[in-house]
Amino acid sequence: MVFPFDLSSIVRKDLDKLVAYDAHLYSDVVKLDANENPYPFPAEVAQRLGELIADEMLSRYPDGEAVALRRDIAAYVGVSPEQLMVGNGSDELILNILLTFGTGGRVLITNPTFSMYRIHCLVAGAKPIPVPRREDFSLDVPALLCYARKPDSRVLFICSPNNPTGNASTLEEIESVLQAVNCLVVVDQAYLEFGGQDCLPLLQRYPHLVILRTFSKAYALAGLRVGYMIGNPDVLRQIKKVKQPFNLNSFSQAAARLVLQHREVFAQQIQDIIESRNKLWQELQGMAGVTPYPSVTNYILFRTNYESKTVYQGLLDKGILIRKLGGPELPGFLRVSVGTPEQNQRFIQALSAVLAELGGE
Amino acid sequence: MVFPFDLSSIVRKDLDKLVAYDAHLYSDVVKLDANENPYPFPAEVAQRLGELIADEMLSRYPDGEAVALRRDIAAYVGVSPEQLMVGNGSDELILNILLTFGTGGRVLITNPTFSMYRIHCLVAGAKPIPVPRREDFSLDVPALLCYARKPDSRVLFICSPNNPTGNASTLEEIESVLQAVNCLVVVDQAYLEFGGQDCLPLLQRYPHLVILRTFSKAYALAGLRVGYMIGNPDVLRQIKKVKQPFNLNSFSQAAARLVLQHREVFAQQIQDIIESRNKLWQELQGMAGVTPYPSVTNYILFRTNYESKTVYQGLLDKGILIRKLGGPELPGFLRVSVGTPEQNQRFIQALSAVLAELGGE
Repeated sequence: MVFPFDLSSIVRKDLDKLVAYDAHLYSDVVKLDANENPYPFPAEVAQRLGELIADEMLSRYPDGEAVALRRDIAAYVGVSPEQLMVGNGSDELILNILLTFGTGGRVLITNPTFSMYRIHCLVAGAKPIPVPRREDFSLDVPALLCYARKPDSRVLFICSPNNPTGNASTLEEIESVLQAVNCLVVVDQAYLEFGGQDCLPLLQRYPHLVILRTFSKAYALAGLRVGYMIGNPDVLRQIKKVKQPFNLNSFSQAAARLVLQHREVFAQQIQDIIESRNKLWQELQGMAGVTPYPSVTNYILFRTNYESKTVYQGLLDKGILIRKLGGPELPGFLRVSVGTPEQNQRFIQALSAVLAELGGE
Repeated sequence: MVFPFDLSSIVRKDLDKLVAYDAHLYSDVVKLDANENPYPFPAEVAQRLGELIADEMLSRYPDGEAVALRRDIAAYVGVSPEQLMVGNGSDELILNILLTFGTGGRVLITNPTFSMYRIHCLVAGAKPIPVPRREDFSLDVPALLCYARKPDSRVLFICSPNNPTGNASTLEEIESVLQAVNCLVVVDQAYLEFGGQDCLPLLQRYPHLVILRTFSKAYALAGLRVGYMIGNPDVLRQIKKVKQPFNLNSFSQAAARLVLQHREVFAQQIQDIIESRNKLWQELQGMAGVTPYPSVTNYILFRTNYESKTVYQGLLDKGILIRKLGGPELPGFLRVSVGTPEQNQRFIQALSAVLAELGGE
């Protein structure tokens, strides 16, 4: 006989709002859905990575402080190691920020933006407050300030360049927010290597600024989950209290260091991706019934006259996986990651065919 | 001018109780402090690991469902993949359990035990309730049941074999708890490969049982952070809501699969460690002023007549790093991980010297 256990009586009530993230795995598709670096990983770096594998890296616990990696990132970025914390992807850092400052308070999110801010708010027991961006997806600074001054406002997320819209906020806009609020202002610059203004110059004057960056996009380490946070040491000291002691595994730490040593290889890839993005944007712009939005990133937001899911499925049927958006905020919108020139060409051809089929119905 | 930011006004008040975990890194010591597998990682497995590194593993996001790894663990353990969830170390799974069930409720912890249960309670906003073990460190089942029946009791942690005490609970004890409570009962079996009874046979009858296991100890992957949780699919579905979508990196997933394929190599190491443990226990037992406690794990809890920190520091001065315990719960106690025969010998010699020095003062 099975013990009569009442699961619903012990599960947190407010988790009702959350749906488990279901990642679909598609094989044999051109994958343009996750803003990854589309190029083959540089062979010489991959080989050196293999050579790094050693006894201690595997059988001993990682360096929980990631001393060597933080030292290398500090030199790369131009800050001190005390201003840095690394995470098992930026996702973990976002959750840690929210567990430190958000729980029980309000968190401002400038929609449409990266979906994990809201999800991690719910996980951490913080109340996500959506503050819509303007029609061109720029920040609505007056609205933001109005919301941020209400009691219990703890954290404010600005993704710049913004995912999924592709535009960046100016330093002036971000500084005008920083000057007027007592929230922690988190600027997520995951796509900075492709464009937008670097917020580092603001760090000295604004102790409530925290910047998120990552190795997952330009630096092609999405599979190894390495994000980092740059901020005031006093702020980081608080966040460290909720950090798992050994949050970033040893291999990922070593891999991120190696990538920094070889960053000239990636610099060339970044240039190529930016050129491909501009070319892809022109091609989308030239297609009837397609409206691409300006992008300083490695992806392009665009709109068609059909439902997002219809276009998405049509592309998938032709072996091209992109991101469907839609909903009341982004009706008819889709997001495509910039691939290799060949992948971009296949995408454009497939999109033309899908739209032609839909138009002929 | 620096912006006048009031950090204390936005940080979570109840984090005062938490101190950031400070991991000290010592070089050139015999490391017997973290219950790691002391043997060189099997060379042939390490080499095959290097060969696994491929483009997609690095530049593409991991499989968030860890389909292949869960399938392999399922076959190894003898459950279905739906009964499994993997984590960035068991640490992450403990936090996820507490974020799903613990927040706002009471969590029973059978002290002395693994310190992260309490820390993650505080992070998740759950109230840790310590329920002392008996003097021989066995579970005090009547006391546990008494506490578990109070309102808002959500989760109950039993570490078996228990860290740091080294003893295991019997299936009968654990079943007597399961039969009487409506909490989630988490049995952490991180050290099961070295001894103690496997709780899997209880899983069919008790949907509120969750078992934690890990690749960090017997399987020598502490550096790569791979833990797993075995439980009722309905329970796991709730926990999945708070899980980070891409929590376990691709390389660690692949490494854990490879280790399972080569587990006969580790089976021999496990046998050797058990033999070394028994020998080490005999030697400690034979030392004047040293009381070792029975262990079915890869570490031994022992007591001397001196303060823990004095003995700890004396050993460290001689190049041996072990774990100091102490405090009101374990006054004068220390924990030593079982090393290689040579390391164990060095530890015994150093401990004899330290005690002789202290005795001669």
